[in-house]
Amino acid sequence: MAQFVAETSKAGAFVRQPNHFTDRVTADGSSGYPVESGCYRLFVSLACPWAHRAIIVRRLLGLDEHISLGIVDPIRDEKGWRFTLDEGGRDPVTGAAYLSELYLASDPSFSGRWTVPTFYDTKTQRIVTNDYPQITLDFSTQWRSLHKSGAPDLYPATLRADIDAVNADVYADVNNGVYRCGFADSQQAYEEAYERLFHRLDVPSERLSHQRYLVGDQLTEADIRFFTTLVRFDAVYHGHFKANRQKLAEFPVLWAYARDLFQTPGVGETVDFDQIKRHYYATHLNINPTGIVPVGPDVSGWQTPHGRV
Amino acid sequence: MAQFVAETSKAGAFVRQPNHFTDRVTADGSSGYPVESGCYRLFVSLACPWAHRAIIVRRLLGLDEHISLGIVDPIRDEKGWRFTLDEGGRDPVTGAAYLSELYLASDPSFSGRWTVPTFYDTKTQRIVTNDYPQITLDFSTQWRSLHKSGAPDLYPATLRADIDAVNADVYADVNNGVYRCGFADSQQAYEEAYERLFHRLDVPSERLSHQRYLVGDQLTEADIRFFTTLVRFDAVYHGHFKANRQKLAEFPVLWAYARDLFQTPGVGETVDFDQIKRHYYATHLNINPTGIVPVGPDVSGWQTPHGRV
Repeated sequence: MAQFVAETSKAGAFVRQPNHFTDRVTADGSSGYPVESGCYRLFVSLACPWAHRAIIVRRLLGLDEHISLGIVDPIRDEKGWRFTLDEGGRDPVTGAAYLSELYLASDPSFSGRWTVPTFYDTKTQRIVTNDYPQITLDFSTQWRSLHKSGAPDLYPATLRADIDAVNADVYADVNNGVYRCGFADSQQAYEEAYERLFHRLDVPSERLSHQRYLVGDQLTEADIRFFTTLVRFDAVYHGHFKANRQKLAEFPVLWAYARDLFQTPGVGETVDFDQIKRHYYATHLNINPTGIVPVGPDVSGWQTPHGRV
Repeated sequence: MAQFVAETSKAGAFVRQPNHFTDRVTADGSSGYPVESGCYRLFVSLACPWAHRAIIVRRLLGLDEHISLGIVDPIRDEKGWRFTLDEGGRDPVTGAAYLSELYLASDPSFSGRWTVPTFYDTKTQRIVTNDYPQITLDFSTQWRSLHKSGAPDLYPATLRADIDAVNADVYADVNNGVYRCGFADSQQAYEEAYERLFHRLDVPSERLSHQRYLVGDQLTEADIRFFTTLVRFDAVYHGHFKANRQKLAEFPVLWAYARDLFQTPGVGETVDFDQIKRHYYATHLNINPTGIVPVGPDVSGWQTPHGRV
């Protein structure tokens, strides 16, 4: 019954696999992968919340002019993510039909799930990293020389301790917490994940009732990471993953906060509700055997005034 | 993939089976089943919307003193509805362990689904009827001599044409429409059912914005039939059946209307959200293979003031 047998504990809980490629691009090039315009390619699914972080941060910092984007089909098949959205079904830069080809070319012994985001070096033709938590932090800190003028500082040195602390809780209980709800194999594992998830939505609801962003008075990495789960909440997690105490739209503060982020230039245009819904509902046949994709919810509310200052 | 193979069309649509037992209890006894206090037994599941109509009407008319109630376990097994809530796992009046025993004792050739409500004559020890649309109408019209003092007239002669017309639309698109969403075997069949469902929720939303009840200025059978689907909407149909354009709680008029009915004496106390959720989520393993029952939604809103006059 488990989505991924290797990622299910004896108690029926979902335990996400570790990331495999953990090299980094660095400003000084000491890692062997120097910052360079036009050299790297970011592979994403528009459906995937982990990849979505990188898409947003890349856009906000103006790195979209320097790092190209490869987009996989939202529907995985048994061989994983596919380049079926591209002409001829192949990524135009690497020629790959499946993302797995790039994983195996980089490490023939790789045997986990092929994941996005995948950060790829077109020169060495190898995957640099699929370590999603580090990719966005490196965009903010290592790629600074290529940021656009006026780019926000999403990971300011003075706020890092707070951001890291918020991120850790949000990761465990929200970003991954929704998956722990949806992929639980036992009622007990589900209920524990559900309690932690909604607790972790109530805590920032309180904080966000008197400040606009999660940490400090500016948009940071913490907001981006929270947002990518919130924007999928009513469309997918509420029904498909049974995260249904209430909809995001029924949390007055969080819903206004999420709309504020959605309406931030560079953010809302990265959201593709159609691909998000098709990915989850058509790929997880273990929890949605018919593969039928819901027509709802009505997403027009995302464009309504948020009133936050 | 279909819940019931015999009830799925070639296009993947859910087609409900006809009712089998269609005798009636009549005021004059001409049917062979005369109205009589203490003689009949109504078998229901608290989860089932078709049975729920009969539970509510029985209560509102004061027939609970004259017709006994047998309640099956909300979880069906492969042999159907069970009396596992009763001591020893047997219905105390008939001694049956399964509802199917009463069907087969009444007609050894019966081969459909065993359904609730089932209206049973304890004298002849036979099922009188499982024809749920007629059962409640007969409670209102044939059982009048046993109604409590001040009982409402839920099917007044002057309004019957209107009530029947509303009921026909609500049945097709709402009562059965939610099942047609949830049990659809194709995207097309689902989407057609979804469009009809939400159209049929928008139409009465308009009507109910300027009148308290669906037909005339009084509570009628039409409201009861609409209510039993509405009260299950957010708890089950929204997620489990993908009826998710919006929640009932996101329809301002319908949500107030439904709360008004819920708070009508005799109605709200017949609603068992726990049994409703356990029935749908734990019984339909074809669309919820894990059998996990959602913790949400928060149902406290049902008790909030409705403001309708």
